[in-house]
Amino acid sequence: MELQVDHPYIPKDLKLPGFVPCFLSQLDILSVYGVASLLVVAFMWNFSGRFPKLSKGDRLLMCWWTFTGLTHMILEGYFVFSPNFYKQKTPFFFAEVWKEYSKGDSRYAARDSTVITVEGITAVLEGPACLLAVYAIATKKSYRYILQVAISLGQLYGTAVYFLTSILEGDNFSASPYYYFWYYVFANSFWCWIPTIIVVRCWKRIVSAVQLQDETKAKTH
Amino acid sequence: MELQVDHPYIPKDLKLPGFVPCFLSQLDILSVYGVASLLVVAFMWNFSGRFPKLSKGDRLLMCWWTFTGLTHMILEGYFVFSPNFYKQKTPFFFAEVWKEYSKGDSRYAARDSTVITVEGITAVLEGPACLLAVYAIATKKSYRYILQVAISLGQLYGTAVYFLTSILEGDNFSASPYYYFWYYVFANSFWCWIPTIIVVRCWKRIVSAVQLQDETKAKTH
Repeated sequence: MELQVDHPYIPKDLKLPGFVPCFLSQLDILSVYGVASLLVVAFMWNFSGRFPKLSKGDRLLMCWWTFTGLTHMILEGYFVFSPNFYKQKTPFFFAEVWKEYSKGDSRYAARDSTVITVEGITAVLEGPACLLAVYAIATKKSYRYILQVAISLGQLYGTAVYFLTSILEGDNFSASPYYYFWYYVFANSFWCWIPTIIVVRCWKRIVSAVQLQDETKAKTH
Repeated sequence: MELQVDHPYIPKDLKLPGFVPCFLSQLDILSVYGVASLLVVAFMWNFSGRFPKLSKGDRLLMCWWTFTGLTHMILEGYFVFSPNFYKQKTPFFFAEVWKEYSKGDSRYAARDSTVITVEGITAVLEGPACLLAVYAIATKKSYRYILQVAISLGQLYGTAVYFLTSILEGDNFSASPYYYFWYYVFANSFWCWIPTIIVVRCWKRIVSAVQLQDETKAKTH
């Protein structure tokens, strides 16, 4: 039988039988994620420098797609397929991340079906597509713009569903205003403004390419 | 005080105080929607014929975007902003549609937050964007392909969230296998295969346009 242990999440009456508190401190968790992400970005920045024809913008995009793709596949992928992460009895890093993040949004610990659905689409479809985008940018594939628009719109749609369902359900899933602001609003905001910039950038490129194609066709007819 | 009236929806223990049963028959509701849709499509098919340079494929797309855009804005828009549609005491057509459709998916009557969110994004953002697509195709705007991809991917994402959340919650929202198949699976399937075809078609056009642009740039450098 699993004992009901006090958890730090809101709403207080959320039932999490077998809950085991975080082992690592917030600083530990954020440092590991931060340092790992910096290493990935630094590696990709250097690696992309080997391709002579890439602009700095393209190289920055390759860094973003690597970072967000690995986050989707590894971190969010772990969450989707680990319904019992909050019972984890050892300081396993991925479980710690979600135990900690649930302070900003307890729907993660509660296995809310909308959160699992959005995270599932993100981890399984968008994650690998992000890594394909890195390859497409590096090798200047003709599908590089439309692929980036497709993934970014998916990220924006997912984020919209994530926030709107929370609002409709009373917006009361954060342990405190601190976690609400830093985990729920601030951390997620990167997946609002970065995809928006990418959609605008790639949209313009596509529109100018189609314009050229239309003009070329008009000339030959 | 509102009396609890028996409703035809599953799960049986769903609470719908003040529920008023359908006034119109299934045949009435489907006929009105079917005839109205046919009129809209017939009008757009004829109207689009006035534009001399449009292919039959483009004209078909204009019919689809008009039909789906009006469905999103009017029918789904009504649902999103009418939380009490199931209490409607007069045979108001839009309320009847959703009372009837809820037999296929009771989450509509139950005001499930995910369904409202997906329908809200669809009605408020995608609906007007569909009508913009009609205009963009007719006037051969350079953004016509990317706009169609963006809307179609949104429809596909919404449909994925719609089905996956239902599955995660036990897939038990239909009044019978008949309603499950015809309303929930068959009716929604149009918003799976049609957007998929459109994404593939427009994706190819964009890729060939970008390829042409890349080649043109390579020549001039």
